[in-house]
Amino acid sequence: MKKGFMITPWEVSGDIDYSKLIKQFGTEKINDELLKRIKKHTGKLHFMLRRGVFFSHRDLNWLFDQYENGNKFYLYTGRGPSGKMHLGHLLPLVITKWLQDKFKSKLYFQMTDDEKFVVKRNLSLEETNRFAYENALDVIAMGFDPKKTVIFSDVDSAGILYKQALKVAKKLTFSTAKAVFGFTNETNVGLIFYTSMQSVPAFLESVFKKKNIPCLIPHAIDQDPFFRGVAREILPKLGYYKPAAIHCTFLPSLTKDGKMSSSNENSAIFTTDDKEEVKFKVMNAFTGGRDTLKEQEKKGGRPEICIVYKYLYMMFEDNDKKLSKRVEECKKGKIMCKDCKRYLIDKINDFLEDHQRKRKKAEKELDLFFTLKN
Amino acid sequence: MKKGFMITPWEVSGDIDYSKLIKQFGTEKINDELLKRIKKHTGKLHFMLRRGVFFSHRDLNWLFDQYENGNKFYLYTGRGPSGKMHLGHLLPLVITKWLQDKFKSKLYFQMTDDEKFVVKRNLSLEETNRFAYENALDVIAMGFDPKKTVIFSDVDSAGILYKQALKVAKKLTFSTAKAVFGFTNETNVGLIFYTSMQSVPAFLESVFKKKNIPCLIPHAIDQDPFFRGVAREILPKLGYYKPAAIHCTFLPSLTKDGKMSSSNENSAIFTTDDKEEVKFKVMNAFTGGRDTLKEQEKKGGRPEICIVYKYLYMMFEDNDKKLSKRVEECKKGKIMCKDCKRYLIDKINDFLEDHQRKRKKAEKELDLFFTLKN
Repeated sequence: MKKGFMITPWEVSGDIDYSKLIKQFGTEKINDELLKRIKKHTGKLHFMLRRGVFFSHRDLNWLFDQYENGNKFYLYTGRGPSGKMHLGHLLPLVITKWLQDKFKSKLYFQMTDDEKFVVKRNLSLEETNRFAYENALDVIAMGFDPKKTVIFSDVDSAGILYKQALKVAKKLTFSTAKAVFGFTNETNVGLIFYTSMQSVPAFLESVFKKKNIPCLIPHAIDQDPFFRGVAREILPKLGYYKPAAIHCTFLPSLTKDGKMSSSNENSAIFTTDDKEEVKFKVMNAFTGGRDTLKEQEKKGGRPEICIVYKYLYMMFEDNDKKLSKRVEECKKGKIMCKDCKRYLIDKINDFLEDHQRKRKKAEKELDLFFTLKN
Repeated sequence: MKKGFMITPWEVSGDIDYSKLIKQFGTEKINDELLKRIKKHTGKLHFMLRRGVFFSHRDLNWLFDQYENGNKFYLYTGRGPSGKMHLGHLLPLVITKWLQDKFKSKLYFQMTDDEKFVVKRNLSLEETNRFAYENALDVIAMGFDPKKTVIFSDVDSAGILYKQALKVAKKLTFSTAKAVFGFTNETNVGLIFYTSMQSVPAFLESVFKKKNIPCLIPHAIDQDPFFRGVAREILPKLGYYKPAAIHCTFLPSLTKDGKMSSSNENSAIFTTDDKEEVKFKVMNAFTGGRDTLKEQEKKGGRPEICIVYKYLYMMFEDNDKKLSKRVEECKKGKIMCKDCKRYLIDKINDFLEDHQRKRKKAEKELDLFFTLKN
């Protein structure tokens, strides 16, 4: 792959300046040295790491110090179950699954049905709880190892979680919560407390195993303030390690207005979309194409602003050579947007066909994963 | 009993003006009409009602409207388990037990080990949880019917309670919690959330029975703002009745500095005190006696400021005639403080001997009462 051909996501994004986020949040960039260190353990690097889809971290070097000294880490990530899941939600799961495979890590997957209930005015607890189990089908379909993966609903596992959350909550003042989460006096007390529930999986394995076990949280960068402000501040006060983290960028909206969002049906491809829906949405996606075919043949397309390209880059084309060839041909006006769209549609539909089959199968596997009993 | 001889507790109290509290909190005085209505159902009135030890209420008339229409009520009360229990803690339990007997009511008894953990800087969750079960021995010793009584620890029953508390918490802003409980920005988020947990038993029976069941909460008057500000405000928004309440005054400190308190060992008689400790504490209690025996024989004692008298009045002498005779003789200088102290010591020690026997027996009965499983 020639230098200059590959565009990193945080450089092309019009909305989000990811390098700025690293400075603002005080996280660290995943640099070549760190990638080399990861590669030492994984053999090959996942393309999402290589390409900077996962671009930022906290304490990964410390985590590997521990790992190399025989202190293995476990993984923690989660989902706010307020509706159906789309491709953007699956992105962090891809690397989480890869990390589980490579490091044989246990994974705690938190379904925050409590959070979504107290945040969403129109959702009942019964609804967010139902989404927890419905969304779990998508999580399971990603291929996590049932022997190493615990999925749980905050509401249904409160018998275990509330007790641990209290320990965090005792050390978290409203003043701090306000600063970290931007709460106001009108914030409801359920959401205020939930912040402590979100910290629990970051030390739960240490509670169960009665010894300090490092935790790695793969998550989208926007969640960093939460973990920085609560879990990383308070866990050391309880005698636990600060959780390490690895951060990804957002899969953009197909219509190019920020990140993929469930609230705008056409901005996102849902895991349950059929082939025609996928085709329709991708065909209407924003690209870097020109106003006329003629102009595009002459000037070439602009992959640096093209959403279809970003989808290939971030999630659906793991072959670097194929991708850079496509960029080259686009820039020279040799391929048109329609070609890339068709290519992406096939990629997504292949993925979803497989995913939907596994998702269906997962309906019978829920009990294998929901093992955190009260 | 002649009029003028009996002094109501809120008239004699130097520290707390109970009539003022009724106005300030906006509760209602338990008047003769209401007492008559209660008596209609109970046959006899408990002396604590007759004497105004329980002096204030909310919605008791509504509760009896419901009762007389066949909609029976259940009882809810609780205890913050932060240490051993004293006689002042047992006072509300006496009337609760009486109400259970007379109305065949189910009782939910909440041990708020979560609250005490987040409030008390020096107590661990393990300690408050241990106190929950230790204090339950005192509750059981009061004679509650195991078939009609559910005692539970918030921490150990969180699997059931958290879900219900979230429904309250979603409708409770920090702003309201601040106004009701006097929270500041430095209050921890565990305590902020706990306020919702305290509301749960006021509608839990309705949740279980899937219909609206009236709830009566016997409690000390100082807790009124909590139930007024949260449970009574929010439960109707969830489709449940406002809980009714019946309020008692405080058993005063033996040393006459406010209410009995666990933090001052000599101010309180603990349920586990032995006969000698009781004797020592009562012998050192504050009375209405004069500086010399001679002066007292001449001027008489002052029962209106006497703590020994208050203990007899509020809790240990249920015989009105005996009590008013004692007041009369005291005022005439015919009996000295020593006589009343000895009389009270015998009363308390008789009570505690029986209580401690039942308390010991209760160690084997915990399972009969802790039936709210996650």
